[in-house]
Amino acid sequence: MASLEVFANPHPDRDYIILHQTDEFTSVCPKTGQPDFGSIQIEYIAAKTCVELKSLKFYLQGYRNVGVFYEDVVNRILNDLVAALEPRWMAVTGSFTTRGGMRSVIKAEHGKR
Amino acid sequence: MASLEVFANPHPDRDYIILHQTDEFTSVCPKTGQPDFGSIQIEYIAAKTCVELKSLKFYLQGYRNVGVFYEDVVNRILNDLVAALEPRWMAVTGSFTTRGGMRSVIKAEHGKR
Amino acid sequence: MASLEVFANPHPDRDYIILHQTDEFTSVCPKTGQPDFGSIQIEYIAAKTCVELKSLKFYLQGYRNVGVFYEDVVNRILNDLVAALEPRWMAVTGSFTTRGGMRSVIKAEHGKR
Amino acid sequence: MASLEVFANPHPDRDYIILHQTDEFTSVCPKTGQPDFGSIQIEYIAAKTCVELKSLKFYLQGYRNVGVFYEDVVNRILNDLVAALEPRWMAVTGSFTTRGGMRSVIKAEHGKR
Amino acid sequence: MASLEVFANPHPDRDYIILHQTDEFTSVCPKTGQPDFGSIQIEYIAAKTCVELKSLKFYLQGYRNVGVFYEDVVNRILNDLVAALEPRWMAVTGSFTTRGGMRSVIKAEHGKR
Amino acid sequence: MASLEVFANPHPDRDYIILHQTDEFTSVCPKTGQPDFGSIQIEYIAAKTCVELKSLKFYLQGYRNVGVFYEDVVNRILNDLVAALEPRWMAVTGSFTTRGGMRSVIKAEHGKR
Amino acid sequence: MASLEVFANPHPDRDYIILHQTDEFTSVCPKTGQPDFGSIQIEYIAAKTCVELKSLKFYLQGYRNVGVFYEDVVNRILNDLVAALEPRWMAVTGSFTTRGGMRSVIKAEHGKR
Amino acid sequence: MASLEVFANPHPDRDYIILHQTDEFTSVCPKTGQPDFGSIQIEYIAAKTCVELKSLKFYLQGYRNVGVFYEDVVNRILNDLVAALEPRWMAVTGSFTTRGGMRSVIKAEHGKR
Amino acid sequence: MASLEVFANPHPDRDYIILHQTDEFTSVCPKTGQPDFGSIQIEYIAAKTCVELKSLKFYLQGYRNVGVFYEDVVNRILNDLVAALEPRWMAVTGSFTTRGGMRSVIKAEHGKR
Amino acid sequence: MASLEVFANPHPDRDYIILHQTDEFTSVCPKTGQPDFGSIQIEYIAAKTCVELKSLKFYLQGYRNVGVFYEDVVNRILNDLVAALEPRWMAVTGSFTTRGGMRSVIKAEHGKR
Repeated sequence: MASLEVFANPHPDRDYIILHQTDEFTSVCPKTGQPDFGSIQIEYIAAKTCVELKSLKFYLQGYRNVGVFYEDVVNRILNDLVAALEPRWMAVTGSFTTRGGMRSVIKAEHGKR
Repeated sequence: MASLEVFANPHPDRDYIILHQTDEFTSVCPKTGQPDFGSIQIEYIAAKTCVELKSLKFYLQGYRNVGVFYEDVVNRILNDLVAALEPRWMAVTGSFTTRGGMRSVIKAEHGKR
Repeated sequence: MASLEVFANPHPDRDYIILHQTDEFTSVCPKTGQPDFGSIQIEYIAAKTCVELKSLKFYLQGYRNVGVFYEDVVNRILNDLVAALEPRWMAVTGSFTTRGGMRSVIKAEHGKR
Repeated sequence: MASLEVFANPHPDRDYIILHQTDEFTSVCPKTGQPDFGSIQIEYIAAKTCVELKSLKFYLQGYRNVGVFYEDVVNRILNDLVAALEPRWMAVTGSFTTRGGMRSVIKAEHGKR
Repeated sequence: MASLEVFANPHPDRDYIILHQTDEFTSVCPKTGQPDFGSIQIEYIAAKTCVELKSLKFYLQGYRNVGVFYEDVVNRILNDLVAALEPRWMAVTGSFTTRGGMRSVIKAEHGKR
Repeated sequence: MASLEVFANPHPDRDYIILHQTDEFTSVCPKTGQPDFGSIQIEYIAAKTCVELKSLKFYLQGYRNVGVFYEDVVNRILNDLVAALEPRWMAVTGSFTTRGGMRSVIKAEHGKR
Repeated sequence: MASLEVFANPHPDRDYIILHQTDEFTSVCPKTGQPDFGSIQIEYIAAKTCVELKSLKFYLQGYRNVGVFYEDVVNRILNDLVAALEPRWMAVTGSFTTRGGMRSVIKAEHGKR
Repeated sequence: MASLEVFANPHPDRDYIILHQTDEFTSVCPKTGQPDFGSIQIEYIAAKTCVELKSLKFYLQGYRNVGVFYEDVVNRILNDLVAALEPRWMAVTGSFTTRGGMRSVIKAEHGKR
Repeated sequence: MASLEVFANPHPDRDYIILHQTDEFTSVCPKTGQPDFGSIQIEYIAAKTCVELKSLKFYLQGYRNVGVFYEDVVNRILNDLVAALEPRWMAVTGSFTTRGGMRSVIKAEHGKR
Repeated sequence: MASLEVFANPHPDRDYIILHQTDEFTSVCPKTGQPDFGSIQIEYIAAKTCVELKSLKFYLQGYRNVGVFYEDVVNRILNDLVAALEPRWMAVTGSFTTRGGMRSVIKAEHGKR
């Protein structure tokens, strides 16, 4: 997985909301080897650091050929971002397209908003 | 009914929301033998295990030729999932298409969110 | 009026929501003898019994040639269903099409949700 | 069936379009005895006479307890109106609600527009 | 003004909601003599009596050639209905079309819902 | 009926389209004495004169208490405007609200566009 | 500015809501002399008097050639109406069209609803 | 009226479409002195010159306090633009807001597209 | 950066809401040198001064060729406006278009509404 | 202006449609020096070459600080692309945001589709 780069929060004395969303997330089903598609939304209040967008893009692209369950990938993204940023609060939501006639949404949160 | 397979919740220390929805549910009316159609939505917070999606698909397909009341099938799905997963919370909603000019929605819940 | 058939609530130990709606209700105006048209929505939490859908359809069709005020028919449907089912909670809403340039909605409830 | 009343076309020297539509048509299925519901649209160019609206309403209400196929009722309405009005052109369209998961539309025409 | 006819509330022991709405209200501006147009919505919980729909239609038609301010007509309708019905609660809302580039809405209430 | 005032077409050498529409037309049913409501749309290409808008408003208001069939009123409006304006082309369309569950549209044309 | 005319609140013993809205407000930018456009919404509970609609229209038209900031005009309208009506509560909202790529909304309130 | 400035069509050897539209047109009714509001759309194929946008804005603002019929203003705008630009083709459409419950659209064209 | 001009709050004794929004914000990515695009919304309650709109437009245009992170620019706009206006409350929201398949929203607030 | 790079049309024996659209076009008004914003849509049938997307992005970004009329920029983009690609057919449409209350659309075409 590409490493997440951070930059110093330019306004650490203020609690403000940062939201990044991509509709171009893809990984691989660990059971069937088939590609999965979905959107990932990341919302957080930064403490000392913010995530740099280009490295976030490369980090998320890193799942392209990884076999991983929906439940796992949303929590791993949350864990990796929490480890890199130590945010005051963060939520990650994954909305995955229909597979076998079934669509799935996973939402995980770190800290209290 | 195909058995529900589970996998270990990869992040059991966190309460996060999992939602699966299919618009391709079909069963049989126990009175008339006619096919019924509807959508099934399952939302839960996992404890030790998550439901594996492919087995969930096969499980739900298992009702295809089963005669069962709407009220019953929604609760049976909830009961079977609760037995298999022992989730912290779960809700199952079935929305069924018009029969005799009448549409029906059934919603059942296990535990408190 | 066709009698309302019930079947044993397959899951009486759980409070869950049941909703049935038809857009094909018709009765007769007791003043003018002219047909009235509307939709009827029934929402309830069952106790020991659920209403069987086909008998509900026949029951509602039973108003086809009955002269009855809007206010009365909604409450009569509620009373008959309450008598047959003894539900923990029930609400009946009738939305009637325009007559003399005026549309009407009547909503009655039994018990507390 | 209530008879269709006509009145003298107040402007017989001009070809103009007349359209009447009701969403409150109901008849009975000749196979099952169950009520059918739909909308009826009548569009025509009058010759010497126009159909009086109240009599048209009563005429259409006359099908309320008549067992008749969709294909038949649309053509019968067209035939009765053509016989009563001798219009320059007429089209009748019936759009019926879902039965057994299937909706139906029947359209018949008399003369050339 | 046509008198408002009432009929005995068929279910006086239950608090239920009755709503009547017409988009065909018209009166006359007391300043200019020009016609005004709008919709009137009446919502109430009946006590001993309900308003009969045909008499309500005639009552509202009675304003057709009456010069009356928007603020006055909404309150007069409320007062007349309250006097005739003595409801447990009632609200009347008038939404009037654009005059001089300005649209108006007036809402008055009697009792607490 | 208030007389239709005209003013000299300020650009008689050019064929251009003029459209006026009101949603506030009301007249009276000649059978029942009940008010009818609808919208009237007038579209034309002027020759030597255009209709003055205020007089058109008063002209249309003149039908407020006149008993007249839908088919008649649309053609009478067309005839009166044609007589007053002698336009190169004109079309009048009346769309009337639901009566007895039935809505009606009448469209008449003078000349070729 | 045209003076605001009032008339005696016909129902001063009842708190009811009055709303007037126009999309045809125009004034002049005090910096550039260019016309500004917007909508003005006035909502209030009257005490002893109501504003007469025609005088309100003329009053608002009075800003047509007046140079005034958005923030000022909304408060001035509120102040003038409060002075004229002494309402129990009033709110004025101005929504202005895009200038220099920027749209503006100003909302001011008098008293508590 | 502010004069229309033009600039040399930068690509006179090609027939291409130019469209300008404003929703902020206002003039004055020549009968009542009351302000009128509407949108003006200008579409054309230039020959040797194009209209400069700022001068077009000032030109249209020039009608702000001018008393003029809808039919006249649309044709005058067309004539003035045709005189200034001598375009290969041009169409001007004015859509005016409701007056006395009536909205109006005027469309005039010069040349063939 | 162009300086923010202010004018005396014409109604400093009243807490009222002022909102300005532009969809035409553009700056430059400090990593790639590529242009960024977005909308900026500013909402505030003024104390002694209001921001003059034209100077606000020039101020925001000042970022056109400045390299700045999303998180920084939203806070800098907030800081500059707070320094210039000393408002009772202010919120700034930036919504930026998709970059690398990812869209971002940043929201910062000063004081309590 | 950055040069447009091309690559060999991989399927030159087939007429197929290529469309590129950006909502992030900005240039400068040659009269006022103020920034303009709009969307540019390019649609073409390639002959021997296709335009390379990254070079197209840089080419369009090249207008960021260029003073140019709407009519000119759309034709210049068309001319530059035609010179670089010699397509069988091409159309360029620019839709520009509101300036002085007026929005503009320019559409130019090369060859026949």
